[in-house]
Amino acid sequence: MRVVDLIEKKRDGGELTPAELRALVQGFVSGAIPDYQMAAFLMAVYFRGMNEEETVALTQAMVESGERLDLSGVPGVKVDKHSTGGVGDSVTLVLVPLMAAAGLVMAKLSGRALGHTGGTIDKFESIPGVRTELTPAEIVAQAHRVGAVIADHTAELVPADRLIYELRDVTGTVPSLPLIAASVLSKKIAGGADVIVLDVKCGDGAFMRTLPEARELAWTLVRVGNRLGKKFAALITAMEEPLGRMAGNALEVRQALEVLRGEGPVDLREVTLALGAELLVLAGEANGPAEGREKLARLLASGAALRKFQELVAAQGGDPRVAEDPRQLPRAAHVVEVPAEKAGYVQRVAARRVGLAAGLLGAGREVKGQRVDPVAGVELLVKVGAEVEKGQPLARLHVGRSARLPQAMEQVRLAFTFGPEKPAPSLLILDRIV
Amino acid sequence: MRVVDLIEKKRDGGELTPAELRALVQGFVSGAIPDYQMAAFLMAVYFRGMNEEETVALTQAMVESGERLDLSGVPGVKVDKHSTGGVGDSVTLVLVPLMAAAGLVMAKLSGRALGHTGGTIDKFESIPGVRTELTPAEIVAQAHRVGAVIADHTAELVPADRLIYELRDVTGTVPSLPLIAASVLSKKIAGGADVIVLDVKCGDGAFMRTLPEARELAWTLVRVGNRLGKKFAALITAMEEPLGRMAGNALEVRQALEVLRGEGPVDLREVTLALGAELLVLAGEANGPAEGREKLARLLASGAALRKFQELVAAQGGDPRVAEDPRQLPRAAHVVEVPAEKAGYVQRVAARRVGLAAGLLGAGREVKGQRVDPVAGVELLVKVGAEVEKGQPLARLHVGRSARLPQAMEQVRLAFTFGPEKPAPSLLILDRIV
Repeated sequence: MRVVDLIEKKRDGGELTPAELRALVQGFVSGAIPDYQMAAFLMAVYFRGMNEEETVALTQAMVESGERLDLSGVPGVKVDKHSTGGVGDSVTLVLVPLMAAAGLVMAKLSGRALGHTGGTIDKFESIPGVRTELTPAEIVAQAHRVGAVIADHTAELVPADRLIYELRDVTGTVPSLPLIAASVLSKKIAGGADVIVLDVKCGDGAFMRTLPEARELAWTLVRVGNRLGKKFAALITAMEEPLGRMAGNALEVRQALEVLRGEGPVDLREVTLALGAELLVLAGEANGPAEGREKLARLLASGAALRKFQELVAAQGGDPRVAEDPRQLPRAAHVVEVPAEKAGYVQRVAARRVGLAAGLLGAGREVKGQRVDPVAGVELLVKVGAEVEKGQPLARLHVGRSARLPQAMEQVRLAFTFGPEKPAPSLLILDRIV
Repeated sequence: MRVVDLIEKKRDGGELTPAELRALVQGFVSGAIPDYQMAAFLMAVYFRGMNEEETVALTQAMVESGERLDLSGVPGVKVDKHSTGGVGDSVTLVLVPLMAAAGLVMAKLSGRALGHTGGTIDKFESIPGVRTELTPAEIVAQAHRVGAVIADHTAELVPADRLIYELRDVTGTVPSLPLIAASVLSKKIAGGADVIVLDVKCGDGAFMRTLPEARELAWTLVRVGNRLGKKFAALITAMEEPLGRMAGNALEVRQALEVLRGEGPVDLREVTLALGAELLVLAGEANGPAEGREKLARLLASGAALRKFQELVAAQGGDPRVAEDPRQLPRAAHVVEVPAEKAGYVQRVAARRVGLAAGLLGAGREVKGQRVDPVAGVELLVKVGAEVEKGQPLARLHVGRSARLPQAMEQVRLAFTFGPEKPAPSLLILDRIV
């Protein structure tokens, strides 16, 4: 079997066998297949797609390229979540301790910020002392002891995904449904959970801009995921305006703590509860989403989730006092307000521009390896539907050390659209796929 | 401008500007653009194609990647020919001295055998002493002195084509019309001729298997070629059975010498005269193909073309006695006949199988850099339309040093098809595009 024959088979619309896909992935990871052949193959997949069998086989081959996190010795149902990435998405910071407080085990492997979207690892690390680069053994031990972990993706898990993603990023082959599905699912399968909920974001600030696209991705993920022997469900959630009011690292921790105290922005709270409820249902701990939501809401109200967050922070070397006193979090030396240029009702707050503004203030990174500034970010003072007067502050910009402030202000200004009438409320959960 | 943006533009069906294509080619040749990005781009071109403007610009950018052969100081009209590759195609060996005998200048840069098709350079080198690796200065000097040159492609001309072709060969991106056109035309433009005829082969032994495919390629080549400021014409010629009776290096020289003596296989002679006549017409040396053909036929009959061949061979260090005494050519120690397994009329001699058989006998190479055996090859004793008896020899196999004889015999056996009736004669020149 020559690699060029496999490329040509896919190029001509053929279906690759599991053995062929395994040979491609193993050969690429070992270095036997050069990146130019993989790049041509990926572009052929972009144009020809993959059917469900091929996507299952590709995912399995990617999982087999590295280690798997073995949580089988940890008592309880192991759950996990994946979000396709948005702006102001602090869900993980709330959901991990909340699930542990509900008696489930959630060892979440996360990534870092890139482009206009934030990364949970950068956010969690803004808590003084927190360490996220844990070994697999440390992750398993903490899952056992605390029931909650937030750790950086380890290089041992799914090396094929890292290598293939790096190549896709520079060869125009990122937006391919089977490649996206295999990337997401291989990491989840290797992460060791039994039950996984997917948060497929849809809208301006998301990778999927339209509902049909988001639905297709969600269906593919759930179908292929279930065929891989795990329990999957997906919610499609709105990402037109940012979730919550914050886009930035320490700022989002502050916001997560508000939700953990039973307060905080309604949209962030509701999306978190809805995702958590799906996990409870899949895990057999609730008879339906409504029952699951009630159970979790009680854990927020009682302070049980907040206490679990303190345990989680302490377990990873952080200062648990932040949970009681958010002033322990790093803060920007300068805060600048962006005033409304006209009066009216807020029609739209474009999430992508808010994400870009947070990045320009220092919260994100344009290329891998850059350091992020924990204090930088955007704090929205109004959201869609609010009535504002001319000159009223719309947002506070938390200015990082090397912020590009004028550009950030411009992005925030452009993010807002005003109109004479209050817009109809829009849905937060757009679809549920189980 | 990021390379990934250009890849995505083509991926999404966009049209690249000349500046963008130049940046891609220059960046790739200089090493600034890695081969994995070029591979993804080429696969996107495979799926999306290129319009005529893009193909012109890509060809120009490739020509600009290296030197051009400067024949402007050589008096007379400079002509050239390109064949898309077939089996038994000894046309170049006849056409180059024939054109020079007609007072034109033909400095032909050629390639080597690969896969089932032969290469003129390997054939010409089977003449003892012949040297084909000439410098550009040597080529120009010999064009001036003799009017005829057959030289190996020099690395200084169109390095982009060599690099891009090597990548296409291993990434499944060879069969792309604009990429084929840019490859062929860039080499012809850099070769310095004013007038170029293209021999687009069509049929079993050719790259283009069907007439519509061959027509599309021929039209593209002529249209794009003319836009590049040279005079182009194309013939589509049959490549169902091999051209002539020989497939092998010294064997094809022997056959070319027969044609140069006014004898030899009719099909090879007629294709050569037809291509030469187009060159005379384009060069203004004949009023139409018929007049051109007559003029050239006289040069074969008079021995003028044969004398020019002797001059050509001598100029490149070879022994000119081969022209009078083909026994000076190397010969195989063993010759094996393949007998007919049944009686009947020959319906078909599959050129591809004959080419593969010649390769198995040692005449070709499967990968670059292999040495070819000058003596090896297939000599057809009958062609399509012949009536044969059972046991009558169909072909003689000239066995090379490391021949795989049983497989070669099997290919030749499979190449022949018999039937009870004499097949209708088929056309040799399928179309003419001027």
